Amino acid sequence: MLWSALENKIVDPARVAVIGAGHAGRGLAGYLAIHGFDVSLYNRSIANVKRISKRGGIKVHGLFEAFANLSLVTDDIAKAIEDRDILIIIVPAQAHNFIAKSMVPHLKSGQTILLMPGRTGGALEFARVLRSHPYSDEILLGEAQTYSFVSRITGPDSVLISKVKNSTKVSAFPASHNRRFMRSLRRLPITFNMADDVMETSLGNVGAMLHPTPTILSAGLLESKEGGYNHYHDAISESVGRLVERMDAERISVSREFVSQSVSLLEWLRSTYDAEGTTLRECIRSIDAYDDVGSPSSLNHRYVLEDVPTGLVPISYFGRIAEIETPAMDAVINMACQLYDYDFWSSGRNLGSLGLEGLNPTEVREYVRTGFMPEKYPELHEISDVLGLEVDEI
Amino acid sequence: MLWSALENKIVDPARVAVIGAGHAGRGLAGYLAIHGFDVSLYNRSIANVKRISKRGGIKVHGLFEAFANLSLVTDDIAKAIEDRDILIIIVPAQAHNFIAKSMVPHLKSGQTILLMPGRTGGALEFARVLRSHPYSDEILLGEAQTYSFVSRITGPDSVLISKVKNSTKVSAFPASHNRRFMRSLRRLPITFNMADDVMETSLGNVGAMLHPTPTILSAGLLESKEGGYNHYHDAISESVGRLVERMDAERISVSREFVSQSVSLLEWLRSTYDAEGTTLRECIRSIDAYDDVGSPSSLNHRYVLEDVPTGLVPISYFGRIAEIETPAMDAVINMACQLYDYDFWSSGRNLGSLGLEGLNPTEVREYVRTGFMPEKYPELHEISDVLGLEVDEI
Repeated sequence: MLWSALENKIVDPARVAVIGAGHAGRGLAGYLAIHGFDVSLYNRSIANVKRISKRGGIKVHGLFEAFANLSLVTDDIAKAIEDRDILIIIVPAQAHNFIAKSMVPHLKSGQTILLMPGRTGGALEFARVLRSHPYSDEILLGEAQTYSFVSRITGPDSVLISKVKNSTKVSAFPASHNRRFMRSLRRLPITFNMADDVMETSLGNVGAMLHPTPTILSAGLLESKEGGYNHYHDAISESVGRLVERMDAERISVSREFVSQSVSLLEWLRSTYDAEGTTLRECIRSIDAYDDVGSPSSLNHRYVLEDVPTGLVPISYFGRIAEIETPAMDAVINMACQLYDYDFWSSGRNLGSLGLEGLNPTEVREYVRTGFMPEKYPELHEISDVLGLEVDEI
Repeated sequence: MLWSALENKIVDPARVAVIGAGHAGRGLAGYLAIHGFDVSLYNRSIANVKRISKRGGIKVHGLFEAFANLSLVTDDIAKAIEDRDILIIIVPAQAHNFIAKSMVPHLKSGQTILLMPGRTGGALEFARVLRSHPYSDEILLGEAQTYSFVSRITGPDSVLISKVKNSTKVSAFPASHNRRFMRSLRRLPITFNMADDVMETSLGNVGAMLHPTPTILSAGLLESKEGGYNHYHDAISESVGRLVERMDAERISVSREFVSQSVSLLEWLRSTYDAEGTTLRECIRSIDAYDDVGSPSSLNHRYVLEDVPTGLVPISYFGRIAEIETPAMDAVINMACQLYDYDFWSSGRNLGSLGLEGLNPTEVREYVRTGFMPEKYPELHEISDVLGLEVDEI
């Protein structure tokens, strides 16, 4: 049996591939390597990791002070993931599809893939590509709700890790793999806790609430003055804050149709940052950690280019499945389309790219739980009845 | 005959009522009074014009230095317009309806009403109220495309007039009254030129292009920093400028269905300000007159509260009549609705309040020309055939 073979390996430290060498990927690779893990680091452009490659590792400072030896630094994804147990994909979410397509042909049975984070629908989008793989059922796939660190590139071969988060929510797709997925991830020195399914991690995308709207609603001054303000304290004015709160209420309404528990943005800010206040603006202004967060210096920034197509767009589409209107989110998406003169609706994560076209909320919940499309349910349940197994165990 | 009576009066200087005592109304009242006209000044709140009332006039400075004696300063609209020949309404356009309702019962046959400016659809909205007046056919009604001055309140009883515009486009509603309307307005020391009809003045609303979009797309910083930037040079960044250009292209597409000539925003900036450049941002930056135009200091500002409901909303509705899509304008309107948590679509000038519901473009053109609704055409044309008159002369 495949899974028993995998379980036997759990006692060994995992060999990890970190896919993506931005602020977060470098932080994660450095963190794992200084904890004694065998880590390969992939980046699409080798030029960007030249110094790391030359020195064979990365200087880590901040919470840790050490040189982290990496076993491989490469722009060849096949080599990066060869013989690796856990592949952590830590790239802008709009690159998930590209990474999936280049990675899938080289995957081996028994590997675990973690999108960190998935944003909204990352694992669903990845799964559509993975399905073409002959051993797709023997590969564990899942997504984290957020990145587990706060880290920042400080030089061509150095990275600052300033915070390790207490815990990061993760789920496998399908959720029937959750326990195996968690068991695999427990080989890492990172604290994870299990979400019900990828709808919970996906709909918990608070970045999509906090980033695009304030950015777009300060776009004129942002662009002409090249930033120079505090994203959280300045761009989230009273009116903008109220709009974000209404967007978040829409997100929670959509969530209620798909997941058992939903955490509002204000609750999330209170539990994560001990924020105080009754409005978003008040909460934000009570958070010291936001004091140093500058603004984008141009409109070419992930606050819109990532969070609209892989956050607001899929949440709005989930709303359509549930027949819940999301006028505030839609107004922001439409304004982004106009301001950037780019169709985020068709290029973002829509029902087609998520593989959810034609499903109703019940069918979506079944799909994220089992990985099976509705037409396969009867057959699936028949097998489980015959074998006397929970669907979860098939 | 009514009109011959009116024509006899043309040799006399007109007695004028200026309705509205904001920056523009005070400038206009002062300008007319120092040119020897008998002027009454109305303001909804007498408290705002207390000092002018007490001193019996207003100090004018800038292009002129004089004390302008006003014959009446009042908050009683009946008294303000009593025995006045020309009533110039110079209030925020969203107040046109209120002014119409309070003014109409007191109107007398032969009076001329000029909305300065009408924004988009001002005369059409006013006409719907005027229709209830027994002598509505004996009252001339029309609108200007813009205000004829640049003026600013500088004290409780003083106003700065810094510019008199070369010429201001006006049209009567219906356009069949245009020549009589012009003849009446020629009694004023202001240069007017005749537009084809109120669709031309209405669709020439460039403020609706230049004001709301940059304001909304800098709203976060505007509100949290209470302004402090230059509206034209800072808020119209490259991307915002491109969006405004696309909105303006939509306006021109809509215009082509209703009027014989449409002037693009860039052409208008070139002819009005000798602007140079190929993009809106370049043109704007070449205009010295914009160097001193500050920003709103709060979101409670006419750049949105006036220009969205009486500019973008009616232009978008004209587009619906013509089956021309206006996605850029609609995105801005929808964003305004979200940011202000207010339905500008239903409260703004829509087909109901403009009296255009159910009309096609041909019928709209006929309506603005003749003032008659489509079902009356056959009758109208029959009469004109019998009398051997142009419809224009009826």
